[in-house]
Amino acid sequence: MNVHVAHQNVSEAPTARALIREYDRVRQTTLALVDPLNAEDCQVQSMPDASPVKWHLAHTTWFFDTFLLSEYTPQYTPFDPAFRVIFNSYYNTVGAQHPRPHRGLLTRPTLARVLEWRDRVDEQMHAAIRIHADDPRFVARLELGLHHEQQHQELILMDVQHLFWSNPLFPAYCEQAIPLEPATTSPLRWVAYAGGRVRIGHESGTGFAFDNEQPAHDTLLQAYELGHRLVTQQEYLDFIDDGGYRRPELWLSSGWDTISAHGWQAPLYWLEQDGEWHVFGLHGMQALQAAAPVSHLSYYEADAYARWAGARLPTEAEWEAAARQQHSWQERPANLLEHSALRTLPALSQDATGSLLQLIGDAWEWTSSAYAAYPGFRPGAGAIGEYNGKFMCNQYVLRGGSFATPASHIRHSYRNFFPAEARWQFGGLRLARDAV
Amino acid sequence: MNVHVAHQNVSEAPTARALIREYDRVRQTTLALVDPLNAEDCQVQSMPDASPVKWHLAHTTWFFDTFLLSEYTPQYTPFDPAFRVIFNSYYNTVGAQHPRPHRGLLTRPTLARVLEWRDRVDEQMHAAIRIHADDPRFVARLELGLHHEQQHQELILMDVQHLFWSNPLFPAYCEQAIPLEPATTSPLRWVAYAGGRVRIGHESGTGFAFDNEQPAHDTLLQAYELGHRLVTQQEYLDFIDDGGYRRPELWLSSGWDTISAHGWQAPLYWLEQDGEWHVFGLHGMQALQAAAPVSHLSYYEADAYARWAGARLPTEAEWEAAARQQHSWQERPANLLEHSALRTLPALSQDATGSLLQLIGDAWEWTSSAYAAYPGFRPGAGAIGEYNGKFMCNQYVLRGGSFATPASHIRHSYRNFFPAEARWQFGGLRLARDAV
Amino acid sequence: MNVHVAHQNVSEAPTARALIREYDRVRQTTLALVDPLNAEDCQVQSMPDASPVKWHLAHTTWFFDTFLLSEYTPQYTPFDPAFRVIFNSYYNTVGAQHPRPHRGLLTRPTLARVLEWRDRVDEQMHAAIRIHADDPRFVARLELGLHHEQQHQELILMDVQHLFWSNPLFPAYCEQAIPLEPATTSPLRWVAYAGGRVRIGHESGTGFAFDNEQPAHDTLLQAYELGHRLVTQQEYLDFIDDGGYRRPELWLSSGWDTISAHGWQAPLYWLEQDGEWHVFGLHGMQALQAAAPVSHLSYYEADAYARWAGARLPTEAEWEAAARQQHSWQERPANLLEHSALRTLPALSQDATGSLLQLIGDAWEWTSSAYAAYPGFRPGAGAIGEYNGKFMCNQYVLRGGSFATPASHIRHSYRNFFPAEARWQFGGLRLARDAV
Amino acid sequence: MNVHVAHQNVSEAPTARALIREYDRVRQTTLALVDPLNAEDCQVQSMPDASPVKWHLAHTTWFFDTFLLSEYTPQYTPFDPAFRVIFNSYYNTVGAQHPRPHRGLLTRPTLARVLEWRDRVDEQMHAAIRIHADDPRFVARLELGLHHEQQHQELILMDVQHLFWSNPLFPAYCEQAIPLEPATTSPLRWVAYAGGRVRIGHESGTGFAFDNEQPAHDTLLQAYELGHRLVTQQEYLDFIDDGGYRRPELWLSSGWDTISAHGWQAPLYWLEQDGEWHVFGLHGMQALQAAAPVSHLSYYEADAYARWAGARLPTEAEWEAAARQQHSWQERPANLLEHSALRTLPALSQDATGSLLQLIGDAWEWTSSAYAAYPGFRPGAGAIGEYNGKFMCNQYVLRGGSFATPASHIRHSYRNFFPAEARWQFGGLRLARDAV
Repeated sequence: MNVHVAHQNVSEAPTARALIREYDRVRQTTLALVDPLNAEDCQVQSMPDASPVKWHLAHTTWFFDTFLLSEYTPQYTPFDPAFRVIFNSYYNTVGAQHPRPHRGLLTRPTLARVLEWRDRVDEQMHAAIRIHADDPRFVARLELGLHHEQQHQELILMDVQHLFWSNPLFPAYCEQAIPLEPATTSPLRWVAYAGGRVRIGHESGTGFAFDNEQPAHDTLLQAYELGHRLVTQQEYLDFIDDGGYRRPELWLSSGWDTISAHGWQAPLYWLEQDGEWHVFGLHGMQALQAAAPVSHLSYYEADAYARWAGARLPTEAEWEAAARQQHSWQERPANLLEHSALRTLPALSQDATGSLLQLIGDAWEWTSSAYAAYPGFRPGAGAIGEYNGKFMCNQYVLRGGSFATPASHIRHSYRNFFPAEARWQFGGLRLARDAV
Repeated sequence: MNVHVAHQNVSEAPTARALIREYDRVRQTTLALVDPLNAEDCQVQSMPDASPVKWHLAHTTWFFDTFLLSEYTPQYTPFDPAFRVIFNSYYNTVGAQHPRPHRGLLTRPTLARVLEWRDRVDEQMHAAIRIHADDPRFVARLELGLHHEQQHQELILMDVQHLFWSNPLFPAYCEQAIPLEPATTSPLRWVAYAGGRVRIGHESGTGFAFDNEQPAHDTLLQAYELGHRLVTQQEYLDFIDDGGYRRPELWLSSGWDTISAHGWQAPLYWLEQDGEWHVFGLHGMQALQAAAPVSHLSYYEADAYARWAGARLPTEAEWEAAARQQHSWQERPANLLEHSALRTLPALSQDATGSLLQLIGDAWEWTSSAYAAYPGFRPGAGAIGEYNGKFMCNQYVLRGGSFATPASHIRHSYRNFFPAEARWQFGGLRLARDAV
Repeated sequence: MNVHVAHQNVSEAPTARALIREYDRVRQTTLALVDPLNAEDCQVQSMPDASPVKWHLAHTTWFFDTFLLSEYTPQYTPFDPAFRVIFNSYYNTVGAQHPRPHRGLLTRPTLARVLEWRDRVDEQMHAAIRIHADDPRFVARLELGLHHEQQHQELILMDVQHLFWSNPLFPAYCEQAIPLEPATTSPLRWVAYAGGRVRIGHESGTGFAFDNEQPAHDTLLQAYELGHRLVTQQEYLDFIDDGGYRRPELWLSSGWDTISAHGWQAPLYWLEQDGEWHVFGLHGMQALQAAAPVSHLSYYEADAYARWAGARLPTEAEWEAAARQQHSWQERPANLLEHSALRTLPALSQDATGSLLQLIGDAWEWTSSAYAAYPGFRPGAGAIGEYNGKFMCNQYVLRGGSFATPASHIRHSYRNFFPAEARWQFGGLRLARDAV
Repeated sequence: MNVHVAHQNVSEAPTARALIREYDRVRQTTLALVDPLNAEDCQVQSMPDASPVKWHLAHTTWFFDTFLLSEYTPQYTPFDPAFRVIFNSYYNTVGAQHPRPHRGLLTRPTLARVLEWRDRVDEQMHAAIRIHADDPRFVARLELGLHHEQQHQELILMDVQHLFWSNPLFPAYCEQAIPLEPATTSPLRWVAYAGGRVRIGHESGTGFAFDNEQPAHDTLLQAYELGHRLVTQQEYLDFIDDGGYRRPELWLSSGWDTISAHGWQAPLYWLEQDGEWHVFGLHGMQALQAAAPVSHLSYYEADAYARWAGARLPTEAEWEAAARQQHSWQERPANLLEHSALRTLPALSQDATGSLLQLIGDAWEWTSSAYAAYPGFRPGAGAIGEYNGKFMCNQYVLRGGSFATPASHIRHSYRNFFPAEARWQFGGLRLARDAV
């Protein structure tokens, strides 16, 4: 959607036709993602943090039903009134919710019925868009609904990967390997930044952004340096082999407690078999790829690795200031999630001309920044205002986007966030250090 | 199977043809039970104590695959070697097991694939029976496998009921109400028994029984009395209304801790809505049926009710001695689980001529007896020996069979057992007291 | 007390003077037990199952205050009304209780104040005994109070041992080693018993007994054999060395879960240091004593050992029937807990003439019997009735008494009980088997 | 110590005599704090976050023993080598630690023995100071040790208050009420600040500070306003009465989960009795003081209150920038903790001339800032470096100091920090808002 809006003259509203085209594109991408799955795969919630795919399909539909159709359609008759509660995620203002850890228990409505609901809502949304395409508030909500659905597209892939990992048969979601590995690995180079007064956050009037990216504002940075590429699986293996998981002095106190309590010895999805490391992914189990970015780290592991490497994590302002300077960062490959055949997912976001590689589209990059409100932050009014602000506690920001992030969904001001111990997102790291 | 064996002359082995007929009857009953369910319903495990229906379908097949085909078929090639682990329940001697609480995560193999496995094993079992019908050890294992599957038939209904209860839409498994309510309720009568030296347990050579019912032996009983029928829902409601759940003096110490920790105020599946009590069952939610037996009680609740009523629970020996005296107890109605259309489940086991009503086929009856080995108990050798003995700790015996117990599976020496806090089985109570 | 009563003519009531002498003896024994401890030792609760020594001192006093002085003293003014709640253990009928796991938080009242309360109550009890020595109900309650206090004497030693074990400095309660080891170890002999109709339980009119030992009644036993002595530490070590803790087929299912969850590899208080096993006791840490009875086993470990040894645990009826036959069992040594200097605790209960050794006074012996009501059991009325009956669930009976059990407190009908996983009591085992 | 250092000419080292005087003053203040307690009070740990007072007495001594005497005394013989482990808090580099939640189990060494150790270390420290008073590294460690001990002085008061609160008798630590209430309550005034480029953090060379306060650096602030005084108990009660604890839209998501899980309805130490609110403190239970600052709030409660009040929490930079502007902030009353009789603890930090009241010495003030490293932060080398940095995760900063913070220990760059759900520290809040 922001691709679209980015090219528009702000005074010209998008036509209903363009809006419907974008709506259909996003909605169909979701269905295409579900294509390799059967009803049983879509039913199960493999841990409390995850949700069933069926729930994702229903909840994204719930968003349009609740925040658009119910408000903009006179005498709107919901498809099933019970769905209002059972597919609400966390919007207290909308009413009661089904408890999150019990989402996987809802074998009824069936997947078939949920897909029927999707069809019905899509039809009604087409009609609504035709009527309200000139209403900026309607269009803003529509955009929000589509970006919301794109977030759930990545969540679907995260949750499916975790589900299949929980099965000792280790089934693959897609057959073809996801080519994250660059042709050649370059030794780490440090790219220097002068710091000073820099601008971060989303400038209003330049396309869609979530409330938490706003307002744009200035901040002060001291001179710093960033690694020109992400940390690789081989580098992380060196950390493990050097006793990284057995040396408390490398860890935050709560990080040490966490790895001790869970017995973590490696990133999530790593499995040692007969002395060889394997990494599980959407393509199933395969041998560790030395030059590919390490992923599925907790904040604690990213932080400990950086300390071991004599470096640190970047702040989110450092990351964003560097990304803004990168001439070519938007020239990301065209074969990200939504543009490609889903079975041959993404390629590496190589950047031959710019100084930083893998900024977008490989793995989310942990920053040292706690997720907090920008100065002057104002959440939206009503239920929509619950979107981001109420999660601003005990979470850390990740930047950059993963291979599973839709291309039209990502931008350099984008703030992803997870608790320090979360590992099922596609999250790795880039090193930073103070300028010498 | 015991129906069958009961009519046989012991010296005559059943023919292969009769064995195959019984095998098919049991296996098809299982499939018929699953008929009202879709693949999603069969996938989910609603609590650690329960199992997914798909798992039941696979595990019962695993039993024949592991304990019969693997042993009796030369060069046996398993359908899928991985199934040996993931569908093992608790037989340590057979090897590793998939952790019980994670059974619901196995979306692969799919239901379709599990049913394919069933077909293949059925075919191979037919062949094996034809070859080994004269081998008593083979036939004994076959009988065990069929009774094992019949146990899982009741578990399937228990687990489906709990799954659907966990869904705020309260779906029904079958449309027609299960007619547990007798036409008229009779006031409680006490039936007196003299006690003395009585015989309990399964007499060897009289058909199939599990190891835990053996050896038959004498025991001493003092004179006692039993209620002529089960405690009704109305009677249990009187207990609730009299503050039963708020009076610690009525409860065992661990019972009081349990109801306090869980906030229990009524049996499982009871729901108060607008001042009216409803009871959830396989037929969905319906109004409390005053004269029907109360069910889904924990041992603690059965014990507390009995204390409140100035009575006590019977011991299992008291129950069995009384059941042995009942001339007509075997004349239970023909429409129990396996003989009827599944959607119109059982009728009440009325007994017009005998003195005790509802002995078999309505609800399991909690006894005060801890589940323990009979004098001289010897578990079978090898993995089969893990069937019962290793659960003889912190469990209590229930007697009698519920409406969901297959008719050919039950007998007066049958010992069911559950932990004191378990409530999802179809378990109610009959009062007992010392003779006056 | 029962020593006393045993020698009395039933028609003659004990004199006030004799009652006061017995009262003082018991109460002073408690104080003598506390003598090696300071106020800090008496303050701490090392786990929820244990209680602070100060609490034991107060609660035993609470019993006399609540059940005797409050009832028998006109216009009785309690020492401190708050003590009625905070030192109530579990008597719901008496009123609210301080939560058990928080007993260790009560730094006020101080130990000094609790001792002051003891003095005051002792003084008032002397006066009450003088007045009511002829009232059988008063005397019965007094006896109960003294036996209650004697139970807490053993609990004090159990809880202190656990507290000191929780301290990495491993302090000793008493300096002199407790001589549990017999001079010579005899190879295990089996003593045969005919079984048949035997009598167990406490015969009324023969001295004090708890309600749970009554009524005396007949039961049927099959022929059986008992080991002539307890299982030794060396024998148990052989079990460990044979992989006992790594072989699931030796364990009850819940036992295997328990040792896996806790990582148990040996009895409580066993510690391997540099390849040598040490056992912690009231005398501190010392080398394993090969011929001494193994103690501090859970029911699960006792049961698994017996299975490994090709035997089983006795039932409590088997134990009691054998003990009744033992001519000399009462000839236990005079230097048990209450008669000896407390620092040189008990000697072994050798029995040169009888066939069973170590029946009383070494270690409690796990039986396979779930703790349940005897036929015709009637708990006392009111709060006193909460003494035993409400714990009759998920506990197993131990028989025989340990070195820490006061001599005047034990008898062959005595039923001790603990949950299957409890290990801090002084509990070992004697093997049993069916007669061959 | 910083009072001392603040007046010194940097080129002139403090004399040994002055150092010993300061050392004695701090050490004796600790002892004076313990004076109202007996050995039992000093023994108990009322929750895992708290520590026994005896442990505080020992651990502060451990610091001097480990980081000064062991390094600076040739052939140093420790008082007891075991104390090295059992009184280590979290310094992994120093070696093993006794598990934090088990600190309360160490009844040995006794309080008397710990006090003996203190005496011995004090004596040895006097000697060491005399020798090394000119060694800046020694003096720096000494300063750190004294500030470390001053932190534990406040912890002692926090932990004692929680211990006594856990006792249903609600004992008082000191008899005289702590006069937190101002003579008159003023309506809230907003004080405006221009923001812009401001300097925060501790300027090196200006006395003692912890590593986490450094380096001093510039940051950008937008214009903002602060409440001129802390939020009062009455104002917080208005929030409660307005349904503050029942309205999810006022709370952070994890805050709502926290209050739901714990059933919080009011700050810690608030108790409603017969419709009247009481607040428990070091002086025992007393009626709510309307004009006194509310304290013992979690971050969640402070944040929810601010949202309810249409305001927000300040950032720590906003707080510090304002405090730096306050001419008279250092003119805090002389009767803070260490200078006064301990039983008549603190007075209010009134500030007649400045614009902000209660900046120092009443209650810590929650800020919205996650506890993180300042730009260029470098932890010290070795074990000392574990002091602060490893806790920089999932904690929030509090500023200002409470009545229990020693006067010589506090400064405007001081950063206190606790997890969002912690409430036992003396923490309230001051409102902030964006400039209009």
